[in-house]
Parts: sequence; structure tokens; C-alpha cells
Amino acid sequence: MDIAIPIYDRFAALDAVGPYEVLSRVPGAKVTFLAEQPGPVKTETRMLTLVAEASLADLPSPEVIVVPGGFGNRELLEASGLVDWIRSAHETSTWTTSVCTGSLLLAAAGVLDGVDATTHWLARDELRALGALPAEERVVERGKVITAAGVSAGIDMALTLVARLTSDEVAQAIQLGIEYDPEPPFESGSPSKAPGEIVELVTTAAKQYA
Amino acid sequence: MDIAIPIYDRFAALDAVGPYEVLSRVPGAKVTFLAEQPGPVKTETRMLTLVAEASLADLPSPEVIVVPGGFGNRELLEASGLVDWIRSAHETSTWTTSVCTGSLLLAAAGVLDGVDATTHWLARDELRALGALPAEERVVERGKVITAAGVSAGIDMALTLVARLTSDEVAQAIQLGIEYDPEPPFESGSPSKAPGEIVELVTTAAKQYA
Repeated sequence: MDIAIPIYDRFAALDAVGPYEVLSRVPGAKVTFLAEQPGPVKTETRMLTLVAEASLADLPSPEVIVVPGGFGNRELLEASGLVDWIRSAHETSTWTTSVCTGSLLLAAAGVLDGVDATTHWLARDELRALGALPAEERVVERGKVITAAGVSAGIDMALTLVARLTSDEVAQAIQLGIEYDPEPPFESGSPSKAPGEIVELVTTAAKQYA
Repeated sequence: MDIAIPIYDRFAALDAVGPYEVLSRVPGAKVTFLAEQPGPVKTETRMLTLVAEASLADLPSPEVIVVPGGFGNRELLEASGLVDWIRSAHETSTWTTSVCTGSLLLAAAGVLDGVDATTHWLARDELRALGALPAEERVVERGKVITAAGVSAGIDMALTLVARLTSDEVAQAIQLGIEYDPEPPFESGSPSKAPGEIVELVTTAAKQYA
């Protein structure tokens, strides 16, 4: 089973590597990091480089697509090889999924027209402007499309996806294998829980990356 | 502030990238992936390659050390450049931390002699054999040493570390920035919660990597 994770300059590292760590443990799965061209790709916070093993053209029809988010994708929305690839690969995929603002790329490819979907909480208006119906759940499954909220939500999404691809037992085993029994040190992981001044701080800070 | 993440063949991707995503967002932090030699380093499940930007020798005294786990570290415990580097860097570090079986490397370097520490739940006996006192908490802080449980626990650890390095407000902002409001799809993230047959399945499966 081919699972493709397409990456691009300034994608968010954890958006891709959270699902990777889960999906690469599925028996029989082959996970491939793709980019426009094979080679090194820098992450959003610029201090880590991942290697794309293949080009988008090398893997046109993977069974599973996982599109990570990151501020670098805004310049790809209008017209790009990545959006074209998503549009085409979605025609034959078994599952098309995204993490964080990866859903903006799915929407730009027409995958989310009139479809409930989620994204990073700061990007809900952008998602709506691209034709999707922003939902507040952390993981939104509609037909063969699964979208996840910001960054870390890719881990929850990937475990759900494993259950669909295989069985609850395999998903539970992988969850135990990565000891995913989270204990966030603060109650600040969503805008509905975080103190108002923290929400403001992050909203302002995000502008430096945009 | 220099934060070093030393990696090695067959380290676990999420062990390193979870903390990276958190720590690279700390104002003024410079996170560097190090290896014996700079260049590509393959992760535990063999389908992803990260790039080490510098050699261990290039950064002998970072303020913060984050050592990821992974099955590849077993052959480094007896004698290795990495263990020597940890022993020496720990003398001047402000914080010395590990994720998952990264604590085995800390222990091999003498950092955990008679110290409470945690690791992946499957590696507690190995940790004890190296002189540490295995604890069951997800994140264990003793003086300047913080150890985290398996793989995904590095995210919890890194957020705790950010609070120590800066303030609770910055840690909360980063937690909100990565939307870390986890909703694991199953109650199977620790051996005390997972069904007995799942614990057995993972214990058996782990042997293929060892």
C-alpha cells in the first residue's frame, strides 16, 4: 500500500512526521515523502530539513494521500504542480487526508467543494473562502476525505486512518507503540480553552510567518 | 540559545520532531540536528530521512540537549562518540533531556546514575540495568534532567521544558500554536490502559526492530 506525503518549502514538520510515525508502522505500508523535485526540503521554522525521496510525478496514484500544512503553501494555492497532483491523485485514491492548513491545498484542488472539513484554527476563514465548510472537530471524516486540525492533530487523524485501513486492533497497537497517552501540561491547546490573552498572542505571532 | 538534537541511524522520527516543532518556536532558540557526521540520517522505520546540519564536534556545549530514542541506539550504548558527547555536553548544559529510549543513552553516559527517569514502557528493564531508577510518569524532571516516556511523550516534555526556559505563557502560546488538544481515538496509549492482547501484540512486534 502506497502512502504519499507531499512536502514543500515551509511545510510544518510535525504535520508530516506525526502521521508518518503512525502510518509507517502499518504492516505492508510504504510511506514516501514526495516533492516537486526529490531532495532536501526545509520546514516552516527553517531549522530542520527532510528529504523527499521522489518527485510528485514518480507517484501519481498512491492509495493514501496525507497533505501537511505550513505557511509555505499559501503561494501554491492559485496554481502549482502540487495542487494539480492532488486533484489528479484524489481521483484514484482510497483516502485523501490533510493536516492543519494542508486542507487549504485540498480545497484549492477542488476536493472540499461544499464539504465539511477542518484546518488550523487560525485558517478557518481561508478554508471557507476556498469553498469548504469549516468544522470545529479535531478530525473530520467525510467519505474518503479526512481532515485534521492544527499540527499535532495529525497524530489523532493518522490513528483514525489506520483503523479504517486495517482494524481497530492495529490502530490500538500503534497507539501503544508510540505511547500516545498525552498529558498536555496546560489547558491551552485550542482557542476555546486557552486564556484570551494567549489566543491574541498567537494570532499576532502567526503574522510573522505569513 | 543553542538547542541540540543529536540523531543517529534508526532514531525514531517523532521522538525528535515532536520536541523540534515545539522548541523551534521559542523566541531566540536555535535548534540544530547533529550527528556523528553531518548529512542524511535514516529514521527507525526506514522510510524517512532527516538531515543533520552539523557534527557532534561542531556543537560541544549547547544550553539544551534533547536526545531522541530509537532501536538504533542499542549499539551505541557500550562506547560511541554520541555517548561521549552527551557525557561532556551534560557538564555544561542548562537542561539535559531525552525522549523514549533516548534515556538509555543518557544512562550510558552516566547522567542517570541513581536518578529517577522514564523511557518507553518496553525499555524499563534496560534503563534499570544502566543504573537509573525507572519511574512510571510520562515526564520526569529531576534537577536539570528531564526524561519523557515513549515517542509521542516528547511533545509533553518539550512544552514543560519551554515553561522552564521561558514562561508558562510562552509554553501555552506554543501549545495553542500547534493546536495540542489531543483526542486519541482509543484508550490504548499506555500498557496500564490498553487491552492485554494489544500489549502482547506490541511486545512481540517490537522484537522485529530490535
